[in-house]
Amino acid sequence: MADVPTSSDFVPPSRDALRSWFLGPRAENAELLERLLTEALRDHVFWRRNHHPEDGFTIREMDKRTPGYDGAVATVTEELLGLLSELKRGVPFFSGRYKGHMAFEQTIAAQVGYFAAMLYNPNNVAIEASPVTTRLELEVARELATMVGYGPKRSWGHLTSGGTVANFEALWVARNVIYLPLAARGAADELGLELEVTGSDGRSAPLKSLALRELVNIPPDAAMDLWEAMWEAAPRAEVNQALREHSLQHLGYQEYVARLDRAFGDPLPPSVVLVASTAHYSWEKIVRALGIGSNQLVFVPVNERFRLDPDALWETVKELTERNVPILACISVCGTTEESAVDRLDRVVEVRERAREELGVSFHLHSDACYGGYAASVIRSAEGGVRSAEEIRAGMGPQPEDDLAAWPTPGWVASMEALSRADSVTIDPHKLGYIPYPAGAILFRDRRVRELVAVDPPYLLPTQGLSSSEDLFLGRFIFEGSKPGAAAAAVWLSHKALPLDERGYGAHIERTVVGARAMYRRLGEVDAAPFRVVLLPEPDINIVCFVVTHPKLGSIEEVNRLNEGIYARMSLSEPGAQPDYIITRTRFQTPIYDGAVEPILDELGVGGVEDWRAGGPEGLVVLRSTVMDPFLGEPDGPDHVTGFVDVLLAEAADALSEMAEPGG
Amino acid sequence: MADVPTSSDFVPPSRDALRSWFLGPRAENAELLERLLTEALRDHVFWRRNHHPEDGFTIREMDKRTPGYDGAVATVTEELLGLLSELKRGVPFFSGRYKGHMAFEQTIAAQVGYFAAMLYNPNNVAIEASPVTTRLELEVARELATMVGYGPKRSWGHLTSGGTVANFEALWVARNVIYLPLAARGAADELGLELEVTGSDGRSAPLKSLALRELVNIPPDAAMDLWEAMWEAAPRAEVNQALREHSLQHLGYQEYVARLDRAFGDPLPPSVVLVASTAHYSWEKIVRALGIGSNQLVFVPVNERFRLDPDALWETVKELTERNVPILACISVCGTTEESAVDRLDRVVEVRERAREELGVSFHLHSDACYGGYAASVIRSAEGGVRSAEEIRAGMGPQPEDDLAAWPTPGWVASMEALSRADSVTIDPHKLGYIPYPAGAILFRDRRVRELVAVDPPYLLPTQGLSSSEDLFLGRFIFEGSKPGAAAAAVWLSHKALPLDERGYGAHIERTVVGARAMYRRLGEVDAAPFRVVLLPEPDINIVCFVVTHPKLGSIEEVNRLNEGIYARMSLSEPGAQPDYIITRTRFQTPIYDGAVEPILDELGVGGVEDWRAGGPEGLVVLRSTVMDPFLGEPDGPDHVTGFVDVLLAEAADALSEMAEPGG
Repeated sequence: MADVPTSSDFVPPSRDALRSWFLGPRAENAELLERLLTEALRDHVFWRRNHHPEDGFTIREMDKRTPGYDGAVATVTEELLGLLSELKRGVPFFSGRYKGHMAFEQTIAAQVGYFAAMLYNPNNVAIEASPVTTRLELEVARELATMVGYGPKRSWGHLTSGGTVANFEALWVARNVIYLPLAARGAADELGLELEVTGSDGRSAPLKSLALRELVNIPPDAAMDLWEAMWEAAPRAEVNQALREHSLQHLGYQEYVARLDRAFGDPLPPSVVLVASTAHYSWEKIVRALGIGSNQLVFVPVNERFRLDPDALWETVKELTERNVPILACISVCGTTEESAVDRLDRVVEVRERAREELGVSFHLHSDACYGGYAASVIRSAEGGVRSAEEIRAGMGPQPEDDLAAWPTPGWVASMEALSRADSVTIDPHKLGYIPYPAGAILFRDRRVRELVAVDPPYLLPTQGLSSSEDLFLGRFIFEGSKPGAAAAAVWLSHKALPLDERGYGAHIERTVVGARAMYRRLGEVDAAPFRVVLLPEPDINIVCFVVTHPKLGSIEEVNRLNEGIYARMSLSEPGAQPDYIITRTRFQTPIYDGAVEPILDELGVGGVEDWRAGGPEGLVVLRSTVMDPFLGEPDGPDHVTGFVDVLLAEAADALSEMAEPGG
Repeated sequence: MADVPTSSDFVPPSRDALRSWFLGPRAENAELLERLLTEALRDHVFWRRNHHPEDGFTIREMDKRTPGYDGAVATVTEELLGLLSELKRGVPFFSGRYKGHMAFEQTIAAQVGYFAAMLYNPNNVAIEASPVTTRLELEVARELATMVGYGPKRSWGHLTSGGTVANFEALWVARNVIYLPLAARGAADELGLELEVTGSDGRSAPLKSLALRELVNIPPDAAMDLWEAMWEAAPRAEVNQALREHSLQHLGYQEYVARLDRAFGDPLPPSVVLVASTAHYSWEKIVRALGIGSNQLVFVPVNERFRLDPDALWETVKELTERNVPILACISVCGTTEESAVDRLDRVVEVRERAREELGVSFHLHSDACYGGYAASVIRSAEGGVRSAEEIRAGMGPQPEDDLAAWPTPGWVASMEALSRADSVTIDPHKLGYIPYPAGAILFRDRRVRELVAVDPPYLLPTQGLSSSEDLFLGRFIFEGSKPGAAAAAVWLSHKALPLDERGYGAHIERTVVGARAMYRRLGEVDAAPFRVVLLPEPDINIVCFVVTHPKLGSIEEVNRLNEGIYARMSLSEPGAQPDYIITRTRFQTPIYDGAVEPILDELGVGGVEDWRAGGPEGLVVLRSTVMDPFLGEPDGPDHVTGFVDVLLAEAADALSEMAEPGG
C-alpha cells in the first residue's frame, strides 16, 4: 500500500504479534481460534465428567435414542442453521472494507475468554456466584486504573454493561459526593459532633460555620475526608444512619429541597452538569433519569478541533458562579464518538484548580473516555512509565513528510496523563478494547466513594466488615445486579495477550492511528475533480470525517443531499445493499458545533454559520470512517485506502446524477 | 428416586426432549454441543473466507512463521490454560448437587445462539450495527409479551443487561407517564389548546379544570390518550417541544418542584412508590438513583405466604390518600428472589380498580417478574390459550397424596393471567429462561409510553418517521446504549427450542416445581431426630426454604448459629471448601417479614415476634434451595433428594457439635 511509512523497511515491533491477535479478515487464524475454543469446551466437559462420577448419569445413552430426543435435536439444529444464514445478513465488521461505526472484530483472546467462562456462567454480582471471575473483574479494573495513572490501591473500579451505565454511575456517585457535606452537616448537628472540613480555599473551618454555597463547593477529596472523620468521631452504625437520613438518596429531591429551604432559607438555583458540547447523547438520558433534568445540562462550546474549549469552560464557570448556580460535575470527553476528539484534559484540570482558588468553586471532574480510554495505553512504556510524544513517534517509525501535524503531540500526551487527575473515568472495553459486548468500565480515583451508594441486601451479614465485603459482593457498590463473569474473563485474557502499554494495546492503537492518517492524507491529496473532498480537522485518534461537494452545489441542503446519497450507497441502511465499502455519517447541529463548523462551511462555500443555523435540525451531514482496523496502514496488505477512495468518488458521481434526475 | 409420581409409569410428555435441552450434569450431551458450536464457528469462518476473496490475505501463512507470532500464540494459549484451571474453582451450577442460588446451566440452544452471534458481535443499539439481531430482540420481546398476555401489537418491549436496569426503566417510564398530565397542562396552556382528559373516575373533563391532585391521578391509559390528543391538536414538533419544556425530565426535580409551587400553591407531599416488602434490594438503588429517595419507598406488608397482602395494600393506599400523598407506582412481585412467592396480582389489580373508583387514585402497576416471569409459560397451551389449574395438574401426571396443596392452584393461574393487566412487567431470561448472562427484559402494555423517554442522537434524522425509527434505532427508546445482539440470539434460539408454553418452558418449569416439592415433602417427612426441620410455607414455584433446629437451642440467636454453621459447611463461602451439596441462606428481617415470621418462630419455639425484632439486623437465618434442576423430581436419575437430606442432617450434627466446643 501507498504513502504511509516513507521508509519501507520499518517494521513495527508488534507487527508479527498483531497478526495473531485477531481471527483476521479472511479468517486466516481460524485454526488457532478453533483450537483454543475446543480446548475450552473439552476442558469444561471433562470437569463435568469428573464431578461426582459416582452419581451416574442423568441423561443416559438410551435416552438419546428416542423420537422425543431426536425431534428436539432436529429442531435446535435446524433453527441454528436458520440463525446462521440470517446472521450473514449482518455487518462484516471484520473486513478491511468496513470503515463505519466504532466496530471491528474482537481479539481472539477476548472471544475465547468470553466463551470459556460463559460455559461456567458465573454471575459477578457476588463472589458466591463467581469465586473466580469477580477476582478477574477487580484485577482488570486495577489494570485500567494503572493505565490511566490512578493509584491502584487508592482507586476502585468495576465493569458495567456499557458506557451509559458507567457514565450514569459516575454522575450518581458524584452527586452523592458533592451533597455529602450537606448531609454531614445535618448528621453532625443531630449527633452533636464538632467537625472541621477543608473548603475550596484549602483552609480548614468548622463544618457548622459554612454557608450553603460553601457546603456544595467542598472539594471531593475533602468531602470524603469529612466522611472518614465522622466515622472516627462516633460509632459507625450511628454515623451511617444519621448520614443516610440527611442524604438526598434517602430523602429524594422533593423532600430534600423542602428541607434545604427550611434550613438555609433562600435556596440555591438547581445544580447543573457541565458537558462538552460533543458529549454523547446518552448524557441527556442520564440527567433525565437521575432527576437532575436535561435543562440543567450546560453545554460548554468546543473549539475547531471538537475539543472542549478551556477558556469557554472558565467563562461558563465564572458566569454560573455569579448567578450562584452550584456545579455538580464537569464531563470532559476523551475520544468523542463522532470525531475521536480528545479534550485537553490537562487544561480542564487547570480550570478546575483556578475555579477553586479564584472563585471558591469545586465540582466533580469526570472523563468520559468510553471511546478513547484504551488509547492511554499508547503513553505507557513496558515498564509502566510515561512515554513522551517524541518517544512514541520514534517507536512508530518514519512518517511521511506532509502538512499533517506530527502525532501524538505533547498536548495529546498531557491530556492522557491528566486522566489521573479526574475524579472518575469511564472506559469501554467493548470499544477500543476489542472485547465482545457487553463490557463497560467505571474507575474512581478515590475508592471511598463507593460507600456512599452501598446497599445491603438481606443475604449479606451487616456485621461483615466493609473491607472484606468488597470481595464478597460487588452488587453492594454498583448500580447493576446480576452480570456476566464471562465479560471479566474476556477482558482479563485480552489484557494478558495485549498488555495495556506500548507492547500490546498501545502498539495496536498506534497502528489504527497510522491507518486513519493514511486515509485522511489520501482524501486530502486525491484528485477528485470535479468533486472536492473537504476534510475536517485531522483526528486525535482514528475517526476520519469529511464532506464531499461539487461545484454545482451551492447550498448546505444540496451538499447534504449529496452526502446522504453517498452514505445510502456506502452503508447497509437499504435492505439488500451490498456496498463495496461501508462508511457512516453524522450531522453537525447547532449549537453543539457552533465552535467548529465555520471553517468547514467556508471551505464548502455554502454560506455561513447563520444559514447553517437556519437549517435547524438538518444541520450539516458529515461522512465518517472509524478506523479500528490495525492493518489499514500496513504496507503489505490489501490497499483499502485506494479502494475506499475510488469507491467513494464513484458513488459520489452516482449520487449526484441521481440528484439531477427528475424527482431525484 | 423416591416419592414423586405415585404411578411410576407416568412419563411427562417433554421427558425425552428435556434430555436434549442441556449439556447435562456429566456433560452427557457434549457431542451435540460441540457439533453445534463447531458448525457455528466454521460457518462464520467460511463467511469471512468468501467475503471479497479478491482482496487476498492480510495475514499470510508466512506471517505465522515468525517468532513474534509464535510468542503471541504461546502467550494466549498459556494464559487460557491458566484461566481454564482457575475457572474450575468456580461453582458447579450444572450439578444436581447444586441447590443454592437461582443458577443452573443454560440451554444448549442459548449457549450456541450466544456463541454464534458473538462471532459477529452485533450491537443492538441500532439496526445499522445489528440488522439481524435487533429484529430478533423485538421478536423475543413479542414472544414474552404474548406469554404474559399482552397484545403483541399494542405492547412493546426489549432486552436489558438485567433485572436492575429493567426495573429501573419501568419506574423511569412510569414517572414520565404519571407526570405527563402535569406537563400536558403546562404545554396546553402555552399552545392555547383546549383538551379533555379522562380522570380516575372514568369521566371526561377539561384538562385545565383539574386540580393538582387530580392531574397526578390520571390513569396511565388516559394519560397516553391525552398525549395522543395533543399530537392531533397541534403540529407534532411544537407539541413535543412544549411538553418537553414542562416535563420533569427536562426541568429536573429542583426546578419542577419550584414551578409546581408557583402554579398550584400548596404543594403535594413527595410522591411514593409502593413495593411488596419482599421486593428485591435493588429497588432501593433504583429509587435512590432516580431522585425519588428511599424514604419514599412504602413497604406493603406480606402475608404468611410471602405474598403482598392485598388488604394491607388497600389500607396503605387509603391512608396515603388521606394524607394527600401521590402514588407513582405499585411494585408487585411474581417470584420473589428469596422464596419464589407469587403475589396474587389479580387481587392487586382489583385494589387498583377499587382505588380508582372509591378514592379517585391511580398509579402505575408494575410486576417485577424477573424471577418468576417464565413460569407464565406453564399456563399457556400449545395453541396459545390459557390452561386451567386442573388441566395443568392433569398434564403433570399423578402427584403423591399428602398434605401439600395441589399445584398450581386456580389463584396461581389467576395471578399469572393478571400479568396482562400490569402496566409493565420485567422478566429475566437469564434466570428462569436459562440464558447466559446478560439477559433481562422489560415489557410495556402500551407501546406509546416509550415516546416519553425518547432521545434523538445526531445520527438519527429527526425527519425520519417515529413508526419506522423503532426498528432503526432501539437506543432511542431505552436506557442503555451499546448492547450485545448475541443475547437476543441466545434468547431467540432458546425460545425456538423450548416454546413459551406447555411444550417447552412450561413443561420444563413444571418439572422444577415437581423437584422442589419432592425436596420439600421429604424435608417435612424425614426423621431428623434429634434435629427438627421447620419448613416455611410450600413454594409458589421452586425455592424451598427451611430452618433446622435442635431441642437444645432455645433462642433465635442459637438457631441462627446452627443454620449459619450448616450454611458454612454446605457452601463455597470458605476458600477451598468442597461441599457435597450446596445451599444458600437468607435472613428474615423486620419489618419486611413481620407478616410471615410468626408461625415460623412459633414452630421453632424460640420466642415471639418481639424477640425477633429486638435482634435487629441479625433477623432469622433461613436456609434456601433454589431448584432450577429439572431432573430432581425424575424417578430414574441420581437420588439427590435423599443425598441432600442426608448431608444436611450430617452437617447439622457437625455444626451443632462445633457450637458446643469451647469458643465454638
